[in-house]
Amino acid sequence: MPAYATNMRLKFPILALIFEIITIILFGVFVDYDDGKGHGHDPHSNETHHEGNPMDLYPMFQDVHVMIFIGFGFLMTFLKRYGFSSVGINLLLAAFGLQWGLLMQGIWHLVDGKIKIDIFKIINADFSTATVLISFGAVLGKTSPVQLLIMTILEITIFSINEHLVATVLGANDVGASMIIHAYGAYFGLAVARVLYRPGLRNGHENDGSVYHSDLFAMIGTVFLWMFWPSFNSAIAEPGFTQLTAVINTYLSLAACVLSAYAISSLVEHKGKLDMVHIQNATLAGGVAVGTCADMNIGPFGAMLIGLIAGIISTLGFKFLSPILASNLGIQDTCGVHNLHGMPGILGGLAGIVAVALGKKEKPCDLTKGQHLNKQTIHFLLPGFIMKLPFWGQPPDQNCFDDSIYWEVPEEEEANEESLAHADHSKNKAEA
Amino acid sequence: MPAYATNMRLKFPILALIFEIITIILFGVFVDYDDGKGHGHDPHSNETHHEGNPMDLYPMFQDVHVMIFIGFGFLMTFLKRYGFSSVGINLLLAAFGLQWGLLMQGIWHLVDGKIKIDIFKIINADFSTATVLISFGAVLGKTSPVQLLIMTILEITIFSINEHLVATVLGANDVGASMIIHAYGAYFGLAVARVLYRPGLRNGHENDGSVYHSDLFAMIGTVFLWMFWPSFNSAIAEPGFTQLTAVINTYLSLAACVLSAYAISSLVEHKGKLDMVHIQNATLAGGVAVGTCADMNIGPFGAMLIGLIAGIISTLGFKFLSPILASNLGIQDTCGVHNLHGMPGILGGLAGIVAVALGKKEKPCDLTKGQHLNKQTIHFLLPGFIMKLPFWGQPPDQNCFDDSIYWEVPEEEEANEESLAHADHSKNKAEA
Amino acid sequence: MPAYATNMRLKFPILALIFEIITIILFGVFVDYDDGKGHGHDPHSNETHHEGNPMDLYPMFQDVHVMIFIGFGFLMTFLKRYGFSSVGINLLLAAFGLQWGLLMQGIWHLVDGKIKIDIFKIINADFSTATVLISFGAVLGKTSPVQLLIMTILEITIFSINEHLVATVLGANDVGASMIIHAYGAYFGLAVARVLYRPGLRNGHENDGSVYHSDLFAMIGTVFLWMFWPSFNSAIAEPGFTQLTAVINTYLSLAACVLSAYAISSLVEHKGKLDMVHIQNATLAGGVAVGTCADMNIGPFGAMLIGLIAGIISTLGFKFLSPILASNLGIQDTCGVHNLHGMPGILGGLAGIVAVALGKKEKPCDLTKGQHLNKQTIHFLLPGFIMKLPFWGQPPDQNCFDDSIYWEVPEEEEANEESLAHADHSKNKAEA
Repeated sequence: MPAYATNMRLKFPILALIFEIITIILFGVFVDYDDGKGHGHDPHSNETHHEGNPMDLYPMFQDVHVMIFIGFGFLMTFLKRYGFSSVGINLLLAAFGLQWGLLMQGIWHLVDGKIKIDIFKIINADFSTATVLISFGAVLGKTSPVQLLIMTILEITIFSINEHLVATVLGANDVGASMIIHAYGAYFGLAVARVLYRPGLRNGHENDGSVYHSDLFAMIGTVFLWMFWPSFNSAIAEPGFTQLTAVINTYLSLAACVLSAYAISSLVEHKGKLDMVHIQNATLAGGVAVGTCADMNIGPFGAMLIGLIAGIISTLGFKFLSPILASNLGIQDTCGVHNLHGMPGILGGLAGIVAVALGKKEKPCDLTKGQHLNKQTIHFLLPGFIMKLPFWGQPPDQNCFDDSIYWEVPEEEEANEESLAHADHSKNKAEA
Repeated sequence: MPAYATNMRLKFPILALIFEIITIILFGVFVDYDDGKGHGHDPHSNETHHEGNPMDLYPMFQDVHVMIFIGFGFLMTFLKRYGFSSVGINLLLAAFGLQWGLLMQGIWHLVDGKIKIDIFKIINADFSTATVLISFGAVLGKTSPVQLLIMTILEITIFSINEHLVATVLGANDVGASMIIHAYGAYFGLAVARVLYRPGLRNGHENDGSVYHSDLFAMIGTVFLWMFWPSFNSAIAEPGFTQLTAVINTYLSLAACVLSAYAISSLVEHKGKLDMVHIQNATLAGGVAVGTCADMNIGPFGAMLIGLIAGIISTLGFKFLSPILASNLGIQDTCGVHNLHGMPGILGGLAGIVAVALGKKEKPCDLTKGQHLNKQTIHFLLPGFIMKLPFWGQPPDQNCFDDSIYWEVPEEEEANEESLAHADHSKNKAEA
Repeated sequence: MPAYATNMRLKFPILALIFEIITIILFGVFVDYDDGKGHGHDPHSNETHHEGNPMDLYPMFQDVHVMIFIGFGFLMTFLKRYGFSSVGINLLLAAFGLQWGLLMQGIWHLVDGKIKIDIFKIINADFSTATVLISFGAVLGKTSPVQLLIMTILEITIFSINEHLVATVLGANDVGASMIIHAYGAYFGLAVARVLYRPGLRNGHENDGSVYHSDLFAMIGTVFLWMFWPSFNSAIAEPGFTQLTAVINTYLSLAACVLSAYAISSLVEHKGKLDMVHIQNATLAGGVAVGTCADMNIGPFGAMLIGLIAGIISTLGFKFLSPILASNLGIQDTCGVHNLHGMPGILGGLAGIVAVALGKKEKPCDLTKGQHLNKQTIHFLLPGFIMKLPFWGQPPDQNCFDDSIYWEVPEEEEANEESLAHADHSKNKAEA
């Protein structure tokens, strides 16, 4: 079965090392430290640099960093046997993605032929990896590390072009990046998931579910994302009271979103019980949806309203829309990124349009961006087709959602099962 | 059994949405961003605002935020089957509590008829939720989400009145809030636990204990609380060297407390073994106890002495006092908040009195506050009686300490037991 | 068997309390808060104080604090039954070590006969505990808390003398401390491990391995260390662009290191699978190796090259060198600190020499330090011999890597084992 040549022994190390060595050479040619000179020399830049200490944004950067590596990484550990890949491949993709993102985002802002790295740029590099990690959620458990490295390069390259067009050419405002990060990452991932559709998983998969402690690991990711989302939406906002506004809007939107996510989860579930999938994800939708207008004067009321609606839409999406997408459109979205990043991202774009129309901010509206993004959606299928090429080592259906195909996994579970097999005298206790 | 109508399908969503919608409307009427104007206009405020960047306190806020959501949330995951509720309901209560706290604390400091939110205010809102989360620890496993939402509203409302009286009217000083947060939260929770006393749990409950990995999850909470406690005790201190003093006092008190908690745990346990309950909790007592005098000039020696004593008292409390409270007074304190927040909080108040008497700070002493609090204790029983009303869906005794009554729980455990029962036919699979 | 008097009931509490009480008395005599006076009065100090707010370094401090308590603590939880000790004893040693480190590091910089504590000093105190925690990794599972407390005192005392000689007398530069922290901690630990060599563990031990969820807990440690390492290497660098350089070099070195660690792990493992031991550790080697020259102008290219090489060396060390050290030299290095801190530390020292030779920084080179350290290695054996004295309660071979010898451990596993045992008629084991 050549399509399932899942032995990574040569193809993965070679690809990873080639990617890294090329990247290092490009860094040698193009990248230098920011030395404090040359700020403000780029007339096309709408970046907002702190004029003070070059380290002023560093705590913000670390908050975003925690979201990328702990937040996204652990959020995906909810699957019972896919935790190594969730945290581990998340680390791999983000560590490569931030290097690639620095290059791809930096080439639009060369100073003396160099990309000058400062804290602002490494925050943006983290943002670029967020798109990949969102898409990773859609195809989680069904792709090989080789496929995902290729996706990382393609997605960040397209993202950086897109971001440049939206921000510099169209001049649109998307501080928290509801659209250009969250919606982009979600629909990119859904397009890839569509191309990689597996009919064999139509009726579910034994490992496509959680166990008790895997759900708790996932809550580590959820809570860190939830806490630091105000930093995500404010890190590159204009310093001072605009940044404070972005923090407070995000903070309030998230708080309201928790209540609506819990309420709707209980409302739609059997006997009013809460569902961990909703709690882990829909509680964050308020952060996504308030992104675009986080730094606008929408008022605490506006921010909370956005959060309330986002929590409702997201929870309903998990309950009713995801099954339809899977069965009717062939989009198997493992983590439900459509519900956490897709729909709330679009809601955020719409909220931005309304906010601008109501005069909350004078910058051009997001409408252009939305249209721009829509036109692009068709292009999202190409990466999927590239990733579908049969030699990237994607797992066969029966090994999906299972770390042991790409990881050495400790054997305790097998051992337990074996001893269970010998437990023929223990029925009494077992049934108690 | 109407008293155990634990189906949350209607009552929880309706209550949560009503609470949230009322809150959003109140925010629409009363709350606005801080715009940098109006500082210093409130003569009754003894708040200490940074004059510089409005974001100066933001890293401190995030430390406190991590304590509230990761710290308290995971600290309570020690129970073997109550981790979803611990982290999940902690998130729910804190997310609602911070909104309610902003309102309740803000109405005493209106500027032009508005509560103007800044970082200082959201730190204080987090503090107000801490009282609820402490009380949650006392009744953990024995209450429904509906009961807890009601407790949140009541406790934060009373807290805010209390805080206003102590800080503004009495003019007392309690920067780290040993008394007004920790002792208040603990005795409020104990009062509720007393009213909700369950004779059926007198002889323990199968699920009222830990498993190996649940104790490790709890250590995530412990360590984050331990690390960031200096931020808790210094976040709202006067900037500069006073704030530094609060950091160093807390840091040293906690370090000394670890040694005494470990020593006493080993001393009182069978064969000198360490007990995870002590390590998870008593190591933090130094942070509670040094709270009131954290910003006073008590010297490193004084801070460490307070920590040393707090660690001893707290560990001894877990070992000897908690069983007595449960059996003789009918106070079933699930997390032992009396030992972590109650007694160390009082110790902190006493230490504050001594410190003021010794001239370490000229502000009025805590004595007034202690008396004030004592008088209030009787009022603490009312919330318990409200929560005891039979239609809030509290769990029957046999379902206490069990997530599955309010959560969809993955079925692996049952599946395992089942396979045990059927193990005699499953050799094929086990050997595969 | 007096050599295995593992009952800690008297010896541990007494030792811990005596250590702590002596420390508190010494703090009473020698330690005071930094009051902002006296800065710059010590002509021998090459410390770089912020002139501004005394809290400026506080977020950096908290990042380092998280590395020490969460990072090191959880990194070591990978063992299946040693998580309590990993996080718990890590907390104990670090909490005591930072107090002792403040004293030992402070006596070289007295101002008016006092050690004046500021944020800079508590960062350095955390650094001093890092050496102990690295050594703890080498002897993990094979030592008692009493032995480890003694090691803490000895190692930090020697470290502080060493650090003083290197920094003040030799005037060498080691901002990220590749050599004086990482290599020192590693070789100190290996020397102790050598002296404590256990022939009985030559053929491995049932508990010297991971289970699925213990590997996930360890990843919490790995990822927090990885994210915050830029803070570790830059916290005490000169503020401004030098500090920015240290952040960016570390950030890039770590990113490159991830790719090479993953690539080599896959290359050397069976069927190209990734090995969690490599991922948990070798991904961090880039942070160690770039330490010494983090604040030098080595360029992004140089930093990434160092990270790339460190990841390769570290992974190969785990795969090929560690087994040789254990079988041929009698060095049983539980966590493989030689591969994460030893070799990458030396690589960092060499990189520093090269960087200085190439004129990237004018300070004296690390060569002196390396030689100095080499001469010291023989002295490292003494602490091992002290720790080997037969009355410190070290565990017998069969109880190594097992929390239950020093901790109360919840009984679920035993219960499980019991039911299994009844099935197999192996009651002996169940009752043991």
